[in-house]
Amino acid sequence: MLFRLSLACWMFGALLLCWSASPCMGQSQAFPHKMPSTKPDIPLSTASQRLFEYPAPLLQDNPLYTQFKYTPLQGLDYHDGDGTVTRRDPSRPILADGKYHIWYTKRDTVVPPIGAANAEQATDEIPSTDWDLCEIWHATSVDGFTWEEQAVAVPRPPKPQPGWRSVATPDILVWKGRYYLYYQAFIEPSGLKGDWCAVSVSHADSPDGPWTHTYQNVVPTGPKGTWDQDAVHDPMPIVYRGKIHIYYKAAFNKWPDERKRYAVGHGLVTSDDPLGPFQRCPLNPVLHSGHETTYFPFKDGVAALSIKDGNERSTMQWSPDGINFEIASVVDMPPVACAPFTPDAFTDTDDGRGITWGLCHFINAGTAGKRHSILARFDCDLSLDVDDPWMRGNKIWFKPEVYFSQGLNKAQRQRIEQANAAAAASSAPSTE
Amino acid sequence: MLFRLSLACWMFGALLLCWSASPCMGQSQAFPHKMPSTKPDIPLSTASQRLFEYPAPLLQDNPLYTQFKYTPLQGLDYHDGDGTVTRRDPSRPILADGKYHIWYTKRDTVVPPIGAANAEQATDEIPSTDWDLCEIWHATSVDGFTWEEQAVAVPRPPKPQPGWRSVATPDILVWKGRYYLYYQAFIEPSGLKGDWCAVSVSHADSPDGPWTHTYQNVVPTGPKGTWDQDAVHDPMPIVYRGKIHIYYKAAFNKWPDERKRYAVGHGLVTSDDPLGPFQRCPLNPVLHSGHETTYFPFKDGVAALSIKDGNERSTMQWSPDGINFEIASVVDMPPVACAPFTPDAFTDTDDGRGITWGLCHFINAGTAGKRHSILARFDCDLSLDVDDPWMRGNKIWFKPEVYFSQGLNKAQRQRIEQANAAAAASSAPSTE
Repeated sequence: MLFRLSLACWMFGALLLCWSASPCMGQSQAFPHKMPSTKPDIPLSTASQRLFEYPAPLLQDNPLYTQFKYTPLQGLDYHDGDGTVTRRDPSRPILADGKYHIWYTKRDTVVPPIGAANAEQATDEIPSTDWDLCEIWHATSVDGFTWEEQAVAVPRPPKPQPGWRSVATPDILVWKGRYYLYYQAFIEPSGLKGDWCAVSVSHADSPDGPWTHTYQNVVPTGPKGTWDQDAVHDPMPIVYRGKIHIYYKAAFNKWPDERKRYAVGHGLVTSDDPLGPFQRCPLNPVLHSGHETTYFPFKDGVAALSIKDGNERSTMQWSPDGINFEIASVVDMPPVACAPFTPDAFTDTDDGRGITWGLCHFINAGTAGKRHSILARFDCDLSLDVDDPWMRGNKIWFKPEVYFSQGLNKAQRQRIEQANAAAAASSAPSTE
Repeated sequence: MLFRLSLACWMFGALLLCWSASPCMGQSQAFPHKMPSTKPDIPLSTASQRLFEYPAPLLQDNPLYTQFKYTPLQGLDYHDGDGTVTRRDPSRPILADGKYHIWYTKRDTVVPPIGAANAEQATDEIPSTDWDLCEIWHATSVDGFTWEEQAVAVPRPPKPQPGWRSVATPDILVWKGRYYLYYQAFIEPSGLKGDWCAVSVSHADSPDGPWTHTYQNVVPTGPKGTWDQDAVHDPMPIVYRGKIHIYYKAAFNKWPDERKRYAVGHGLVTSDDPLGPFQRCPLNPVLHSGHETTYFPFKDGVAALSIKDGNERSTMQWSPDGINFEIASVVDMPPVACAPFTPDAFTDTDDGRGITWGLCHFINAGTAGKRHSILARFDCDLSLDVDDPWMRGNKIWFKPEVYFSQGLNKAQRQRIEQANAAAAASSAPSTE
């Protein structure tokens, strides 16, 4: 259907090409005052053509548009915010035995991280980055707002097993009654060569464990020379079209460069067995925008949230096949490391109902020298079963102070004042 | 060229359609670790295909991506913020005789606006909306940060001339040595039937005036039944391909509806004469996203900023012909009512150099009952002549508190807690 749409667009384009040689000279059927629900059969600008390829022409009717609302979590202690305790990169919550369960990266170290640039000074006790020397912990909640930390789910395995240095950024799969935690398994301090690692897996027959570590890189890095040769990050499983689909991310194309240019790709591996082997989708990357990965079944396809990185940052996307994604909307302030509660993530649904809440993280909690990450809750209306008009506004009305907090630095101000004044002077009338 | 691209995309699509019947089963040439600068000749996902249609595959190299920085203006008094004085909808600054000049909507009324819903109670002294009973004022600056208000440029003409009720939302054109101010000319309190008005024009041989009012609706509303039948808003002229191009906006498809659904279209009229007649582009609307209009010459085409409204809100767009726009990037916190300093706006350039600063407004200054609008300055790097790495970051790192200020309201919180608790209870193991 996607390609049929492409064909239709192209044929329209060709017609327009002939017709629009003198585009503003002629008379034509004008665009109507009552918004059509499907593409009208009149000459259209490319923006008007695109309008009818979104889930709905009116933003307010677009089921893949939402505002996000944020609430602090209760019940988790951060050691008075001294920087030694971090919780980040939550899994999606799942509901089991009357409770919501999450897993996340927890760092509880003697000192705050010394930074990726100083990774060579990292020791067995001193972390390089915020996700170095971490373990995967488990917490539960009955309301999704107040959480009770339970215990470590996946500790670091003994050296030299994958993850001995750090296990981080977990997500959960439920498959045939068993529970599988996928996570990044570091074998060196992150930051040393980059953020290099593959994905490992542990499994259990209850969300409360005990968890069996496989000591295997179940999703290994890609072949040398390919985009994901160094890293498989942020594994996020769903069950779709009968198979386990794990989406993941790799930053790549990092060469020393004063601009810190890098690319981000998001890939897909599939398998019939949660312990693998997994096959890489030959069309990878399936997305080039977004930092962490967030995917959920939506209608008969798969929706994704792309934040931060790439030309399509801050967009909701949708694909009819889990592979070929198109922009569905542009959103403000999307959750970072978004992990939505998705009751149909593992049911192999062909009628995904969407999401209404989940967890995310903020990595800039605390003051300078005590920076750490905290988990938080978001709510939204990306659901076919909820209709919340307060979450469908088209703009966040930040106070002017929030804009002014994004101000010029001293060097910028100086450069700009000089340029503006020089331009003004050069345009001044002669006083001779 | 746009259509050649479309054709290439479509052909790729057709090839993929055959090839991808079992999309995750085969081997293929994988996407490389070194980012190609043009589309590689390997099977690609639709996202990978799109990647090479943006101005650059890497966000950091995309000349139409920027962060926006904001600075309060000095020198303008708002009557202690009591709500009786508003300044909004600035024109783009122009440089003449050693000074930057702007024009803007100014309201200076005995009381704050009573609101569109109460428009029937509006009088000759009591305004309905923030842009009712307004005049167009003029201010100058040598540095772009501190502004000196000069005098009214366009007062309200006598009844029943267009604009007798309010003149608002001006923008400037310089054409053959003369200055032209285009603005919305209201003949009733805004809010009465909607926000209905056409565009009028005044002209002068100096930015300091005096301004000659034409008393003409130089850009009238569209024919009955067409999208812009009721309104021509936010006129913004540029000179492009030898003609005056005026972009404008109309909200339409407003029917009584608890969801306040509406559509926004952005149109184009062109003429060889600043006093008209103007011809409507038959491909209007040229954009369906964005609230105010912001257009500037960029390379051999035209760039646009779309904020707030529509599925493509918060995007930079670019068109090779001023008519057919494509998304060029997604931006955060774009300026509202963005009016960029654009030295080549009127030079008929075919090598537009872009923009680095301008004015915008915030409509939510002041406290409840004293709301008013203020002008502010933004800076950015959407210029081919400036390279500011501090404006090219891929994320605004808001503090957690800014996210938490976007919280759930009481009704939402109640609905959500009940739904979450009910779901948890229904999944609890039986205690019998």
